[in-house]
Amino acid sequence: VISMPVSERKLIERIRRSVRGGASVVTGIGDDSAVLRVPPGNEVLVTTDFSIENVHFRRDWPAELVGWRCLTRGLSDVAAMGGEPLAVFLSLAIAKDVPQKWVDRFLNGLLDLAKEFKVPLAGGDTAQSTAGVQADIVVIGSVPKGEAILRSGANPGDLIYVTGHLGAAADALARLKLPKPGRAKRVSAQLSRHRPVPRIAIGRWLRQRGIASAMIDLSDGLSTDLSHICEESRVGAEIEAGAIPRAQGGTQKTLVALELALHGGDDYELLFTSDPSVLLPSKVAGVGVTRIGRITKSRGMRLLTNGRARRLQAGGWEHFRGGK
Amino acid sequence: VISMPVSERKLIERIRRSVRGGASVVTGIGDDSAVLRVPPGNEVLVTTDFSIENVHFRRDWPAELVGWRCLTRGLSDVAAMGGEPLAVFLSLAIAKDVPQKWVDRFLNGLLDLAKEFKVPLAGGDTAQSTAGVQADIVVIGSVPKGEAILRSGANPGDLIYVTGHLGAAADALARLKLPKPGRAKRVSAQLSRHRPVPRIAIGRWLRQRGIASAMIDLSDGLSTDLSHICEESRVGAEIEAGAIPRAQGGTQKTLVALELALHGGDDYELLFTSDPSVLLPSKVAGVGVTRIGRITKSRGMRLLTNGRARRLQAGGWEHFRGGK
Repeated sequence: VISMPVSERKLIERIRRSVRGGASVVTGIGDDSAVLRVPPGNEVLVTTDFSIENVHFRRDWPAELVGWRCLTRGLSDVAAMGGEPLAVFLSLAIAKDVPQKWVDRFLNGLLDLAKEFKVPLAGGDTAQSTAGVQADIVVIGSVPKGEAILRSGANPGDLIYVTGHLGAAADALARLKLPKPGRAKRVSAQLSRHRPVPRIAIGRWLRQRGIASAMIDLSDGLSTDLSHICEESRVGAEIEAGAIPRAQGGTQKTLVALELALHGGDDYELLFTSDPSVLLPSKVAGVGVTRIGRITKSRGMRLLTNGRARRLQAGGWEHFRGGK
Repeated sequence: VISMPVSERKLIERIRRSVRGGASVVTGIGDDSAVLRVPPGNEVLVTTDFSIENVHFRRDWPAELVGWRCLTRGLSDVAAMGGEPLAVFLSLAIAKDVPQKWVDRFLNGLLDLAKEFKVPLAGGDTAQSTAGVQADIVVIGSVPKGEAILRSGANPGDLIYVTGHLGAAADALARLKLPKPGRAKRVSAQLSRHRPVPRIAIGRWLRQRGIASAMIDLSDGLSTDLSHICEESRVGAEIEAGAIPRAQGGTQKTLVALELALHGGDDYELLFTSDPSVLLPSKVAGVGVTRIGRITKSRGMRLLTNGRARRLQAGGWEHFRGGK
């Protein structure tokens, strides 16, 4: 894992210095593979997420935020299983024209989040890219045997919940795509403030109590991620438009548009289902939990607005693409 | 892990159809994380390797071979720890101009090797790339607690061994870089024949008998990989030039140049050290094992040719780079 052309030595040295051996890391960077210890009676969670320049982020975004969000994607996947993160691996390809300072700031953002969750960066790979930056984040986690919360466990009649507020990231990104004179700096500051926090504590809380029948993280947007739950559980869903907890929008002190809360991605909140007999507190681990609908036997998704139902499609988040 | 823009649906469906749940895979593609079962009393091995177009391979190489070698890199890292591979994850970014057929052939090559070692492809990520192909291979393995063979265990006086023959891959690649009329096809055929096989069985054999004090796989070339052993073990090494098992070179039925066997990479043989009191068979798991030198207390590496010593540098393999 440590082998790389000499030109990448600086990068790997920087990463190597950042590496902290957690209790779970027996051998980290410096061997062919990392060696991890998994708590007895636990299964291993593995998730990989690519973050690609001009697809998932732009280089003119705050680099710390790009690094932070890169790792958020992985940690959020572990949270959505009710798991605990054990170690992080970063495969990073960097083109020659990317300034060292950008890479340093990217790593700082990523390591800030790793520190916050006490997850060691235990290895990875570095390479030269022929164009731009490509980062693949691998998060290894653990969960007590048989207790992982899957997408496939939702039952008709279960209530649907989300954590936090939705649409803030999509709102900030929409502004970035439509730059107006003098606005770029303000939007960038807004984006910087929006550092999504993976909901590890909430996932753990739900898993320990056996409360969630199914769970997913909101990375692609409520409508798309709910459709995954429906697909894997072979059920349908009904959502109350008015119940969706919309985030505050940018500088205007109003709520974001319903469309952004429904279809915007990158919120990294959790969506889960639970038997209607279960009473949930309004907050878990300091974060609001809101009931937004229920699972139905009939397939497909419906959106209820003032009692009127219309078909809800997986509108999904289209990642930003260069050239569009 | 399964979330992706609609344009990648075809790719993920292809991967999903290929996925075989091994005994170790509780939940594979189709949830936020994969869930793996690790044998009781085992530690977990994790290795990630980036393969990037125009850095590690060219698109005009046989696509099956590119996929095969991509996975070889990861499995070889697990072999070098004396471990067993449990599951493979592939993060694959593909530009719009890459033909579906190329991707299919790439996956076929990768899956051929996975099948040969009965390792399931248990997940990963797909994304659109802005240029070319980037593939990050993650291999998860297991090894009985405390038995991983590290780079750091070599002792002065230990003998140095390599498996198989060295330099064939570097020889074929050197020919590819110097195309002559009418030669490209022949070289491509030669490269196709050279499908490196990760030495899992040899690594296991050595681990079970506690024979190897240190081990590494030859991915960057003998001189570079031996220098990693020396660095991590804080020792030096002496190599007999005449003892290095050189591969047959291309079409000429002669041995490859010593330089290629010394510094060429991508052989994926194992280099290990062992106490001189241990008697090794000349073959392990059907593959030759050759003694090439010994570990010294004095740091640095020396190459002995007809009794004369000269300094050996980590000459290392410079990956092919576009534009060179």
